[in-house]
Amino acid sequence: MVTMCTILAIDAGGTATRAVIVLPSGHCVGLGLAVGGNPISSGFDAALHSIAAAIADARTTTGPSAAAVTSTVIAMAGAGAHSREQLSAGLVALGIGGPVQIVSDVLAMFRSGTLAPDGYVLVAGTGAVAARIENGSLAAVSDGLGWLLGDAGSGYWIGHRVAAAVAADLDGRGPATALTDLLLAELNTTAGEHAASPPTTDAAPAPVERPPVLTRLIESLYALRPVELSRFAPLAFRAADSVDDAVARAILTDAAAELGTTFAAVADPVVTGPVVLGGSVLNSGLLAHRTPLGEALRAATDSAPLLSARDGIVGAAVLGLMQAGFPVDETIFRRITDDVAALLAQSHIH
Amino acid sequence: MVTMCTILAIDAGGTATRAVIVLPSGHCVGLGLAVGGNPISSGFDAALHSIAAAIADARTTTGPSAAAVTSTVIAMAGAGAHSREQLSAGLVALGIGGPVQIVSDVLAMFRSGTLAPDGYVLVAGTGAVAARIENGSLAAVSDGLGWLLGDAGSGYWIGHRVAAAVAADLDGRGPATALTDLLLAELNTTAGEHAASPPTTDAAPAPVERPPVLTRLIESLYALRPVELSRFAPLAFRAADSVDDAVARAILTDAAAELGTTFAAVADPVVTGPVVLGGSVLNSGLLAHRTPLGEALRAATDSAPLLSARDGIVGAAVLGLMQAGFPVDETIFRRITDDVAALLAQSHIH
Repeated sequence: MVTMCTILAIDAGGTATRAVIVLPSGHCVGLGLAVGGNPISSGFDAALHSIAAAIADARTTTGPSAAAVTSTVIAMAGAGAHSREQLSAGLVALGIGGPVQIVSDVLAMFRSGTLAPDGYVLVAGTGAVAARIENGSLAAVSDGLGWLLGDAGSGYWIGHRVAAAVAADLDGRGPATALTDLLLAELNTTAGEHAASPPTTDAAPAPVERPPVLTRLIESLYALRPVELSRFAPLAFRAADSVDDAVARAILTDAAAELGTTFAAVADPVVTGPVVLGGSVLNSGLLAHRTPLGEALRAATDSAPLLSARDGIVGAAVLGLMQAGFPVDETIFRRITDDVAALLAQSHIH
Repeated sequence: MVTMCTILAIDAGGTATRAVIVLPSGHCVGLGLAVGGNPISSGFDAALHSIAAAIADARTTTGPSAAAVTSTVIAMAGAGAHSREQLSAGLVALGIGGPVQIVSDVLAMFRSGTLAPDGYVLVAGTGAVAARIENGSLAAVSDGLGWLLGDAGSGYWIGHRVAAAVAADLDGRGPATALTDLLLAELNTTAGEHAASPPTTDAAPAPVERPPVLTRLIESLYALRPVELSRFAPLAFRAADSVDDAVARAILTDAAAELGTTFAAVADPVVTGPVVLGGSVLNSGLLAHRTPLGEALRAATDSAPLLSARDGIVGAAVLGLMQAGFPVDETIFRRITDDVAALLAQSHIH
C-alpha cells in the first residue's frame, strides 16, 4: 500500500473555519467545518479550538491512510510570527503535528477564484478588504481594519447602518423606512423572547416614554456583539430591491462608494488580471439584482473579468499544494473546486 | 439646635456621578464625586457603588447635623420602575435610607441652566440627546440611543470618526489629515506602553505589511471600550480651528447636522423658551471658536437665548427641593449654582 501525500488546508475566518484534506491530484478526501477560528476576533484559545474541531471533522470522512499529513497551511487574517509559533505549538500539543504555514486569508480568497499570477481581490463579508496580487504575492492591501475603524462597505457596515436607520425611524429622528418592519420581523423570528416579553408594567411612567418597540430594539441590539449586526445586511438588499426603499438604497449606494474607494486604493493601471469578489455580501446572489452596490461594483472593476469566491478554502488548498512543491494546473484547480463544493453539499451547508 | 431639612441630589451620569447636599435656602453643604453611576452603561452593582461613593464623599464635607436627609433625588437616564425599586432597596441596604425619587437626566440638565417652565435642552457629551420641556415636564425626547445606535453628533460620534479618519489616512484609503499626528501624539502621551513598545521582530514578514504605526493604532483603539473614543472629540475641534483641517471640519459639520436633526425632532414652533446646551462637547469652550458645530448650533437654535450647563447636578438639586415642597426662586437657583461651582473648585475638578 502506498502512503499518500496529503495536505491539510484550513481557512480560519472570523465567523467560520473550514478544513480540507487534499491530495496532489486535487482530490479532496475530507472536509470539516467549525465556528470562527481567527485569533484576533475569537481569542487565541477559542481559535485554536475551532481549528482543531474543523480538522477533526475533516478527518472523520477520510481513511487512516490519509492521516499522514505532509504539511499544513492555514489561511488567516493578520497573523504575525508570534501567532504562527503559538499556533504551531498549540496544534502540536493537540496531536496535530507537522510544520504549519500561515498564509494571508486575502491571498487564499484570490486563489479560490483563479490561478492567475496577477489580479485583484475585493472581499465584503462580515469585514471588507481589497488587495492587489502580483506574481502570486500580495502587492498592496487596503482596509480590513475591523468593525470599529474600517471594514467600510462590509456586512457589518451595512447591518450597522440598517440598525441605526431603524432606530432613527422609531425615534422620529429619521425617515420612515421599510427596513423597520423587516428588522423587527427578523428580531421576532430569531429572538423569540422579545415577542413573548410581558407588556411594560411600569407603575409610574415618566411623562415621556420611548415607544416600547424602540426600547426592545435597543435591548436586543446592545445584547449582540457589534459584528453580529452583519446579519442584518441582507435586509438592505431586500428593501432596496423589493420596494425600492430610499433609505436602504442610500445605505447600499454608500457601501458601494466605500468598497469602490477601498478597491481604488489597491488598483494599479499597469497590473491587469481578474477581480475575485469574495465574502457573503458580494456572493449571496443579491448582487444579481440591480442594487446600487452591484451596479457600482461593475463600474469600479471596469472591464476586468469578475470571478467569485465563497470563501478561502479552495485557495488555501491550492496554496498548500504549491508550497509543498506540487504543481497546480487548471485541471487540478477545477477538481479541488468541484470536490469542495460536493463535500460542502454533503454536509448540508451552503 | 434646629434639625435642618436637607436634600440629597445625585446626578448619575455615564462617565461621572455627582452628589450634593442642599438646604432649602439653596446653600450646598457637601459635594461628592465618583465614577459613572448609570446602571445601563456601568451595570447595576457598579452604578450603586458609584452613587454610594459620591454620597459618602459629599458627607465628608458636612457636619453630622446635616445627615438627616429629608429626601433623595437621583437624575439618571433610562430608569424605569424596576431600576427605581432596585436602587431604593440597594441604597437602604447600604444605610442610605429614605425615599428615592428618580428624575430624567435630561430634565435635570435643563434645570441646571434655567428655572423657565418651557424650553429646550440639547446635550452632547459622551452621548447626545434633545428634549422639549413644557410646564416643567419632558414633552418630547429625541436620540440618547447610545453609541451603537444613536448619540449622533456626540463626543463618541465625533471621536469615533476621528479614529476612523486617522485609520483611513494611515491605510492610504482616506485623505491626509492633521488629526493623524494629533491622535498619535495623544495615544503616545496617554498610553506610554505604545511609545515604548519594541520594534517589530517578525522574522518572516508577509510580502505586504501594514505600517507598524497603523498596527499599533488598531491595537490601542480596540483595547478601549467603544465609548472611550469620545476622548478624541477635542482633537477635531483643535484640528478644525488651528489648521483648518478639511477632514476635521467635515466631521464637525456632519456632527452639527446630526445635532440639528435631533434638535429639530423635538422643536415645536408653539413652544418658546431658552435652549440649554449641556455636555462637554457643547461646553468645553471649544464652541467659542468659529467651528462648524458652533455656527450650525447658533443657526439651529434661531434667536432663542442660549444657556449652558456643565452637567445635571444643579438641576438635580433644584428638582429635589421642588419635589420636597421647597420653592426655588432665582435667588435660591443662583445660590445653588454658585455653591456647586465653589465646591467643585475646592475639589480641584473642573
